[in-house]
Amino acid sequence: MYLPKGFRFAAVHASLKSDPGSYDMAIVVSDRPAACAGIFTQNMVCGAPVRLAKERVPGDGFRAVVVNTRVANACTGEQGLADARHMAELAAKSVGAPGDKAIAMSTGVIGRMLPMDKIAAGIEKLAAKLDDTEQAFIDAAHGIMTTDTRAKYASRRVTLPSGTTVTIAGFCKGAGMIAPNMATMLALVTTDAPLAVEDAQPMLRRVADESFNCVSVDGDTSTSDMLILLANGAANDAVDGTVDGGMYGSVGGDPLDETDRAVFETELRALCVELAMKIADDGEGASHLITIDVSGCGNRQEAAKIAKTIAESPLVKTAIAGGDPNWGRIMCAAGYAGVDFDPMKSSLAINGIELFHAGRPLPFDEKVVAASIRENRDTHIDLRFGEGNASIRFWTCDLTREYVAINADYTS
Amino acid sequence: MYLPKGFRFAAVHASLKSDPGSYDMAIVVSDRPAACAGIFTQNMVCGAPVRLAKERVPGDGFRAVVVNTRVANACTGEQGLADARHMAELAAKSVGAPGDKAIAMSTGVIGRMLPMDKIAAGIEKLAAKLDDTEQAFIDAAHGIMTTDTRAKYASRRVTLPSGTTVTIAGFCKGAGMIAPNMATMLALVTTDAPLAVEDAQPMLRRVADESFNCVSVDGDTSTSDMLILLANGAANDAVDGTVDGGMYGSVGGDPLDETDRAVFETELRALCVELAMKIADDGEGASHLITIDVSGCGNRQEAAKIAKTIAESPLVKTAIAGGDPNWGRIMCAAGYAGVDFDPMKSSLAINGIELFHAGRPLPFDEKVVAASIRENRDTHIDLRFGEGNASIRFWTCDLTREYVAINADYTS
Repeated sequence: MYLPKGFRFAAVHASLKSDPGSYDMAIVVSDRPAACAGIFTQNMVCGAPVRLAKERVPGDGFRAVVVNTRVANACTGEQGLADARHMAELAAKSVGAPGDKAIAMSTGVIGRMLPMDKIAAGIEKLAAKLDDTEQAFIDAAHGIMTTDTRAKYASRRVTLPSGTTVTIAGFCKGAGMIAPNMATMLALVTTDAPLAVEDAQPMLRRVADESFNCVSVDGDTSTSDMLILLANGAANDAVDGTVDGGMYGSVGGDPLDETDRAVFETELRALCVELAMKIADDGEGASHLITIDVSGCGNRQEAAKIAKTIAESPLVKTAIAGGDPNWGRIMCAAGYAGVDFDPMKSSLAINGIELFHAGRPLPFDEKVVAASIRENRDTHIDLRFGEGNASIRFWTCDLTREYVAINADYTS
Repeated sequence: MYLPKGFRFAAVHASLKSDPGSYDMAIVVSDRPAACAGIFTQNMVCGAPVRLAKERVPGDGFRAVVVNTRVANACTGEQGLADARHMAELAAKSVGAPGDKAIAMSTGVIGRMLPMDKIAAGIEKLAAKLDDTEQAFIDAAHGIMTTDTRAKYASRRVTLPSGTTVTIAGFCKGAGMIAPNMATMLALVTTDAPLAVEDAQPMLRRVADESFNCVSVDGDTSTSDMLILLANGAANDAVDGTVDGGMYGSVGGDPLDETDRAVFETELRALCVELAMKIADDGEGASHLITIDVSGCGNRQEAAKIAKTIAESPLVKTAIAGGDPNWGRIMCAAGYAGVDFDPMKSSLAINGIELFHAGRPLPFDEKVVAASIRENRDTHIDLRFGEGNASIRFWTCDLTREYVAINADYTS
């Protein structure tokens, strides 16, 4: 696995989770000031860490991102905001940075106060354990998990047109919950590419709109969703052998030019898509990863509305769980997405087999299509309209009894 | 039970369902031309019977509504529309009315053609069985059921300010499905009140917006949803002992005046609310009926958006199924409804116990609130904002393992 230069990682058990063998805090540290871009939950009720991060990001000079699980620090009033500020400050100071040059992320129960003594002790332990090894990176990916069944991480390395080789590595957690709570998406991407903040932020927005924003497990948008990109420019070290970039100023070395940025953005997008798919694939109780392609729409917003409505339809999701090629439920969900279209110009295929064409059902062997669903973890829904040229790719998972068990029975 | 004058009902087994003991077709007949108002699914992909009914309703002179289950006659192209037209025509002619003076309703599998031979034979049997008894009415309520676990019907009688006594009786089916298909809401309300079509249609729209449109089981809007009101004016018979109203013209006697209409609308609303609540209460797999009151919003549309988002949140629904007073999930769902509000002016109570006030969690005995959820079929969520004076009441049910079993495992 590739790791970007100039980053260290750690995870510890800070006694937030009851199992002493599981990590419940993680940290990512850049050894030099990094540009930081962020995408945040659109929920009106956003957690204190989100409120704090929105004040600071996008911005320059960041050194650390610290994460805790079990307590979301949401709906906690002004004390919650003060706690988030204090948590970030402790993380920043633990690596010798100014107090406002770190980001805090929290996931877990809404409406409980952060146990600040445990958080403070956890940050001390994290600082002592920082390392630039693959194991430390994977540990950090584990440290942010809630009901995720596996750690989700990815990395990529690319040599840009200018000759600079840059590395991107990121990890995330998906729609999982800590009893009794939330489906939060947290993602943290690090890169040693030199990026100006003013380039990084719009790039991250575009990338998020084609990756994390195209995933829905259950339609619940958490109070705490956050995607953070740290770009420290350490890739430039390779060129002249010296550490580049001034402390707490802008990122190291010359930022990527437009040509390099375009290539970098492609890689960043591919990495974020990979992470986003891992979230859908590990949706609570999921037995299928469902990829939904919607094309032929008037514009991308309309395509997204239709794809999201299908992705969140309990009837579609339970049909896939049951191995049933129920194209009627898919067309029905498309129909109530709030987008005008002509059903007579619409066609639908599941796993490459066209079932509905130009407004009419096609004869097909139900057993063959059902088997293709049952026997594969991936299900592909391809819906084509005749309204225009816009398209989107969206991911979700099926809805199983296990989803209900995870989300209903945590108190028993 | 009260039944309106001048209506007859019937249900038969027409071999659409495999169980020969179960009804699968039903009919309602007015012995004289009735005013007909209708509210239809907003789904872009609407069934052929909906397309047909939209051509005819609102209108005068209607004599019959015929319903079949098992086949929705949706996504069936022009042949499907011709079949729906033929089905309605057969029903109209079976009671001696012009062919275009009946409405057809279908619920069931999308994408299959109506078995017109069975439908025609069923209509013949229905016509032979018509009766004005309570049993015939209840049979008809059974005849439209799919996965409903019980028939849903209600009736009311009221003496209007002018002295006329009118009766309303209706039945409906809820979010259930026929393997392998759809959650369709069908509702049929009959009254002997004399109503002009131009008064009936806007009245039914207002009533639907506070009853059937305030129910969500799983957020899936069917291709076939239909609410039909037949008003035949037979109540006026009581006044002078003669049958009033011309055949195939307007409704019998003088239509209700404004004062009478206001009282009638209140009764009609109460009846439709009763029916709508029965749908939520009998949602697939439901173990709780959830009533959601949202108040203090800037306008009713915003209140509705918030209530609907909470009602459709899988995390809220599974929490109630699990008997958990998880107010964080409710506030979170409100937060992503797409409506601006200040969480610091928001408060939330479950079953009368305030858990969250002015942006902060309140201390409460979790066991007491949990017990109040577990020990009652009804759960009440009361969410108050500080944005204005608009409010809404909305109904849904919880999300259980049984829902998934019903909707995933029908093929096995």
